[in-house]
Amino acid sequence: MSTLSLSLTFFLLFHACLALRPFRQQSQNQCQIQNINALEPNERVQGEAGYTEFFDSGNQQFQCAGVEVIRHHIQPQGLLLPSYLNSPLMVYIIQGRGYQGIMLPGCPETFQSSQQMQESGSFQDRHQKIRHFREGDVIVIPTGAAHWMYNDGEEEIVAVVLVDSTNAANQLDQYHRRFFLAGNPEQGKEQSPEEGSSNIFRGFDLDILREAFNVDQETAEKLQSRDDNRGHIIRVERGLQVIRPPMRIDQEIRGPRDNGLEETVCSAKITSNINDASHADFYSPEAGWTNHLNSFKLPVLQMVQLSAERGVLRRNAIMSPYWITNAHGIIHVTSGNMRMQIVNNEGQAVFDDMIQEGQLVVVPQNFVVVKQAGEQGCQWISFRTNDNSVVNTLAGQRSAIRAIPVDVLANAYQMSPEQAWRLKNSRKETVMFASSRSRS
Amino acid sequence: MSTLSLSLTFFLLFHACLALRPFRQQSQNQCQIQNINALEPNERVQGEAGYTEFFDSGNQQFQCAGVEVIRHHIQPQGLLLPSYLNSPLMVYIIQGRGYQGIMLPGCPETFQSSQQMQESGSFQDRHQKIRHFREGDVIVIPTGAAHWMYNDGEEEIVAVVLVDSTNAANQLDQYHRRFFLAGNPEQGKEQSPEEGSSNIFRGFDLDILREAFNVDQETAEKLQSRDDNRGHIIRVERGLQVIRPPMRIDQEIRGPRDNGLEETVCSAKITSNINDASHADFYSPEAGWTNHLNSFKLPVLQMVQLSAERGVLRRNAIMSPYWITNAHGIIHVTSGNMRMQIVNNEGQAVFDDMIQEGQLVVVPQNFVVVKQAGEQGCQWISFRTNDNSVVNTLAGQRSAIRAIPVDVLANAYQMSPEQAWRLKNSRKETVMFASSRSRS
Amino acid sequence: MSTLSLSLTFFLLFHACLALRPFRQQSQNQCQIQNINALEPNERVQGEAGYTEFFDSGNQQFQCAGVEVIRHHIQPQGLLLPSYLNSPLMVYIIQGRGYQGIMLPGCPETFQSSQQMQESGSFQDRHQKIRHFREGDVIVIPTGAAHWMYNDGEEEIVAVVLVDSTNAANQLDQYHRRFFLAGNPEQGKEQSPEEGSSNIFRGFDLDILREAFNVDQETAEKLQSRDDNRGHIIRVERGLQVIRPPMRIDQEIRGPRDNGLEETVCSAKITSNINDASHADFYSPEAGWTNHLNSFKLPVLQMVQLSAERGVLRRNAIMSPYWITNAHGIIHVTSGNMRMQIVNNEGQAVFDDMIQEGQLVVVPQNFVVVKQAGEQGCQWISFRTNDNSVVNTLAGQRSAIRAIPVDVLANAYQMSPEQAWRLKNSRKETVMFASSRSRS
Repeated sequence: MSTLSLSLTFFLLFHACLALRPFRQQSQNQCQIQNINALEPNERVQGEAGYTEFFDSGNQQFQCAGVEVIRHHIQPQGLLLPSYLNSPLMVYIIQGRGYQGIMLPGCPETFQSSQQMQESGSFQDRHQKIRHFREGDVIVIPTGAAHWMYNDGEEEIVAVVLVDSTNAANQLDQYHRRFFLAGNPEQGKEQSPEEGSSNIFRGFDLDILREAFNVDQETAEKLQSRDDNRGHIIRVERGLQVIRPPMRIDQEIRGPRDNGLEETVCSAKITSNINDASHADFYSPEAGWTNHLNSFKLPVLQMVQLSAERGVLRRNAIMSPYWITNAHGIIHVTSGNMRMQIVNNEGQAVFDDMIQEGQLVVVPQNFVVVKQAGEQGCQWISFRTNDNSVVNTLAGQRSAIRAIPVDVLANAYQMSPEQAWRLKNSRKETVMFASSRSRS
Repeated sequence: MSTLSLSLTFFLLFHACLALRPFRQQSQNQCQIQNINALEPNERVQGEAGYTEFFDSGNQQFQCAGVEVIRHHIQPQGLLLPSYLNSPLMVYIIQGRGYQGIMLPGCPETFQSSQQMQESGSFQDRHQKIRHFREGDVIVIPTGAAHWMYNDGEEEIVAVVLVDSTNAANQLDQYHRRFFLAGNPEQGKEQSPEEGSSNIFRGFDLDILREAFNVDQETAEKLQSRDDNRGHIIRVERGLQVIRPPMRIDQEIRGPRDNGLEETVCSAKITSNINDASHADFYSPEAGWTNHLNSFKLPVLQMVQLSAERGVLRRNAIMSPYWITNAHGIIHVTSGNMRMQIVNNEGQAVFDDMIQEGQLVVVPQNFVVVKQAGEQGCQWISFRTNDNSVVNTLAGQRSAIRAIPVDVLANAYQMSPEQAWRLKNSRKETVMFASSRSRS
Repeated sequence: MSTLSLSLTFFLLFHACLALRPFRQQSQNQCQIQNINALEPNERVQGEAGYTEFFDSGNQQFQCAGVEVIRHHIQPQGLLLPSYLNSPLMVYIIQGRGYQGIMLPGCPETFQSSQQMQESGSFQDRHQKIRHFREGDVIVIPTGAAHWMYNDGEEEIVAVVLVDSTNAANQLDQYHRRFFLAGNPEQGKEQSPEEGSSNIFRGFDLDILREAFNVDQETAEKLQSRDDNRGHIIRVERGLQVIRPPMRIDQEIRGPRDNGLEETVCSAKITSNINDASHADFYSPEAGWTNHLNSFKLPVLQMVQLSAERGVLRRNAIMSPYWITNAHGIIHVTSGNMRMQIVNNEGQAVFDDMIQEGQLVVVPQNFVVVKQAGEQGCQWISFRTNDNSVVNTLAGQRSAIRAIPVDVLANAYQMSPEQAWRLKNSRKETVMFASSRSRS
C-alpha cells in the first residue's frame, strides 16, 4: 500500500469524527447532585520512575460528567510505556518537559537516522514523528491510538489527564481500559484503578508471536515481559536515544511554511500551548486572563469533542457568574486557590468552598458558577466536554442580564427602572472583574 | 472582545450542532408499549398572570419518545419570567400573540432607544432583539438559552411546548430542569413537576452578587426575590415598555432584503408560522392540508433535531396509513377531534380511540398510524424528533404499496393480479383522502 | 407533489444521516467479557420456501456490540415477504442470486412495462427499482425501509444479516422489531425470536382499510392475510413476474455513464460486491487477500455507520495481530476455518479456539486479535460498527511496533537494540503473512 492510501486511512479517523457530538451516556439521576466536593486523588500506582494518581471515578461528579481524571508524575529519564485506551484523552502538562510518540495507524515512519546510530552498530532506525511538549501544553490523544511519553528534562513531569470515557468514540462500556503494549504493569498491585490493565502480548501464544513477528523464542518472551517488575513508568538509564529535531521554545510561531508539501493528515497538529497570556482571549491587567483552546484553534478537537480553558485570576479578582450551555467543566487548580460557588436549578449552592492547588471540581452543564481568587490569586485548567463551549455570563458586558430590556428586569425583580439600569450597566468589563478590595 | 468574535462564539453553538443526530437515550424496554392513551395535563402550576400545565412525564409514551410536554397559559400583560432549560424547546402558539426575548450568548444588544424613555428619566436602554409571535408560530429555543415571553394581546396565550429532554445537547440526565433568572417560582407549591426549579441567584452569597454586579445591597437582595409571591408568570401592570419594531402581520414575506449587511448568526431565524394553508405542502380542498416545518425551511432545526407538522383534516376525511422511519411523533389536537389507530409490529392496535381537542398522543417511530377526522374535522400540531422526518404512506400515490410490483402483491396477499392492481391504483391521492361519506 | 420534491424528501434521509456517529447504547458492564465463544444459530423460523436462523441476541457478545445477527435461507422461487425493521441492516450474500425491491419513500415508480403483461389482461404495471444481487454482494437497507427479496436462481440463497439495533437511527429501544406488510408470519410459532412480528394490517379495522385503499371487503381481508399459513418466506409457483433489466454479471464496471441525467438520490447505490480478489485492498498470492467496503466506496454507509471486510487467508497463513480503534467486528466464517486469539486489556485471551464455517464471533473494539488459517484456508465476512474502521497492526510494515523508536522498544522490553531492530523489521509484509510451515 502506498503512503498516500494509508494516510487516507487515518484521514478517515478524523473525517468520520467530524460528525461526533457531545453525547453523554448515563443512567437516570446521575446528575442529581446535591453536594460537590473539591476532590484530590485517592489512589496511586507506583512505577520505577514515577507514579500515577487516580481521582475516584465512582464519585458522583465524574459519573455525571461521564469522565475520569488521572495525574501522571514522571521523573527525569522516566518513560511511560506505550499503551492505548478505549477513550480519547486530553492531557495538560502542569510542569516539566519531554517528548512523546503517538502511533497513528497507516502513517509512515518519517523520522529517519541519516547516520548509523552510535550505540547500536550497523543499523538505521526509522519511526513515526516524535513530538516535544512542555509546561502549558494541551495534548490530544485519539481513542485507541498507542502512545508513550518520556521526560528529557530536569524536573518531574506532572500531567493531568482527562479520560473521556463516555465519548462517542468509545463503543465499549464506560469502564476505563488501558491496553499496554509492553511491561508488566499489573505487578505488585492488589486492586488497580485501571483494573487488571496489562501487557496485551501476555494473552497470545508464544508460537503465534514468534510467527507473527518472525522472531526467536527469546524475543517473543520479552514481548510478554513476564519478569519485568518496573511497573508502567520505567527508568531509561542512559537517557533515551531517538531521532528528533531540536526543541524550539517558540513552538507557537506558524506561518506559510506550514503549507509545504510534507503536510498530510499524518502531521495533524495535536498539541497547543495555552499557558501564554500573550495569546489570551480575555485579558485584564488587574483582573486576570483566559485562553480558550477550541476546535477553531486546534481542529483535532472536533474529533474528540473536547476543549480546554486556561484561566488566571489575580488576587481577590472575581469572574462573572456564568453557565456553559453545552458542556460540563472539569476544573483543576494548578496554583493558588479560589472560592467557588456552584448553583443548581433549585437555587441551591451545591458547592461553596475554597478549591486549592491540586484539587478538582466538576461543574455540571448549565449549573451557574462564580469564582473569586484568594490572596495569592489562582490559576486553573478547565476541560470541557464540547469542542466549542458556549458561555453565558450574568454580569458585565455581553451578559444575559445586559441582553434583557430594563422594563423586563424592573418588573421581574420588582425594582425601579433606575435600579434595573444600574444592574445592567454597572460592570463595564466582560469576564473578569478586579476586586474592589485589591483596588483599595 | 469585538462583536464579530462574539458572534462567532454563538455561531459555534449552531455550527457544532449541525452534527447532532436524533439519538434517544433509553433503558431497555421503554417502548414495549401495549397500550397508548390520549393524554391530558395532570398537574398545574399557578402564577400571578397565568399558569403552566404538565403532562405526566412518567407516562410510558413520553419515556419511549424521550420527551416531555407542557402547556403555558399567559394572560394579557402576563410575563413568563426569564429562564433556561437543559434541553431544547419547540413551542407552538395555539392562541394569542406577544413577544419574547431569547438571550443568545455573545450577541450584541441591537435594539436601542434613540430617545430617552419617557417613564424613566435620563437613561437610554439597549437590549438584544425582541421577536413577535402569534397564533400558528413555531418557536425554537436552544438548550441553555435564557428566554422570556410577554402577552401584549387581548386574549390569553396558549402555547404547547415540547421539551426534548433526551436531545444530544443535554449532557445532564433526563431530568427536566428549568433554571430561573428571577422570581420565586417555587413559592406555594408542595411538589412541582419542575421540581424545585428556583431563582439561581438565591444560591449565591449577597456579597458576591454585590461585587459581581457592582450594585448595592438592596439590588442584590432583589435579584434573589425572596419575598416575591407572584410565581413564574407575573402581571406587568402598566404593560411592558421595550424597544421593538411594530409587528407586521405578514411576517412570512421574505426577499432580497434579508441578505443585507445586518444579517449575522445573531439574527438567525428561530420562528416560523405554519398555520397558513397558502403555504401547505399537501392541499386538497375536500380532504385537508398539511404543512411541514423542517430544517430546509428553518435551518435552526438542524441544531435541535426536531421538526413539526401542522395538519388539518376535513370532516370525515382520512389520512393514508403511514409510518415515520426516523422519528417519533407527538400529536396534540388543537381543534375538533379524530379517530386514530396506532399499530405496532405485532399487528396490534395499541391505540384505537378518538382524540379530542387539548389531548395528546405519542406515535413511536415506525409504528403505523391511520387518522380519520370526526364530524367537525380536526386540526393538530405534531412535533417530531428529527429535523427532517421521512414518512412512508401505505395507500395512494407514492406509497410503499404502489412501489411494489403487482406480482409480488398478488403472491404475498394471495390475490389475483387484477385485485393487486386495484389495491395499488384505486387511490389517486397522496396523503389525505376525502371521505366517501362526506362526498355522498 | 413533484418527483423532484419527493426525491428531496428521501435525500433528507441520506443527508441528515451524514451526521450519524457510531454511538452504542449500553448499560454498565456489558463489555466485561471474560469468555467469548464461537456461536451458531440457536433458533429457526420456518417458512414455506425457506427459513431464518437466529443467533442468540441475549449473548454477551451481541450485547456488548449492540447488534444482532440472523441468517436467511431462501429456496429457489422463494419470496421473503415485504417488511421493515427499526434498525439498519447490512446483508452479505453467502450463496445464491436473486433480486429485491427496497421501497424508498418519495421515490418514483421508475420501472414500467411498455406492453401489457402477458398473464394479466389489460393493465400496465409500474413499480420502484428492482435490484439484482448475487454471491459476495453486500446490501444496505436503511432503517424503516420496506424491502422484499426473491430467489430467481437455482440454488438456495444463504444471506447473513447484521441488525444494528443500537444504531443512532433507531429511536425505539434495543428490541429487534420487524414490521411485516403482508403474510401471517406469526403462524405456528410459540415464541419467535422476532417476538410477535406480524402483519401490520391486522391491527387496522377492515372499514378503515377499505376506505384508505378504496377497495372491497375481500381485498381488505386479504391485506390482513389471516388464513395464510405459508410463513414469512413463500413459494411463487410460476416464478415471479416483475419488470426488470437483465442481470449483468459484470456489475462492478462503472464509468462516466453513471453521471447521466437519470441519476438522483432515488437511484443511490446500496449494494456492492466484495468477493472479488481483483479489487482487493491487500493481496498476497501466498498469504491471502482482504477487501474493505467503507463509505468511500459505498457512500450510503455513512448513513448507517457500518462497513464490511471480506477476508481470505491461505492455508496456515497468519494475519498480523491487530486492534480496531473505532469499531466492533462481527466475524462470520463462510468457508474453511481458522484459529483466533482475542486478547483484552488484562492481557488475557478471552477467545482461543478454532472458528468453523458458519460460526461467528464478536471482537470488541480495541481488543487485540490474531488469526491463523487452518489446513483448508479460511474465508470470512466481517461486519464493523463504523463506516470507516481504523486498524492498527502490531507486526509488519506500517504497524504500531514499527512506528516506535528502537531505543523505546529496547528499554520497554529489556532487549538489546539489535533484538528491537529485528522485532520491528523481520516482517516485511503489512497485513497477512504466509506460513513458514506452508512455505517449507
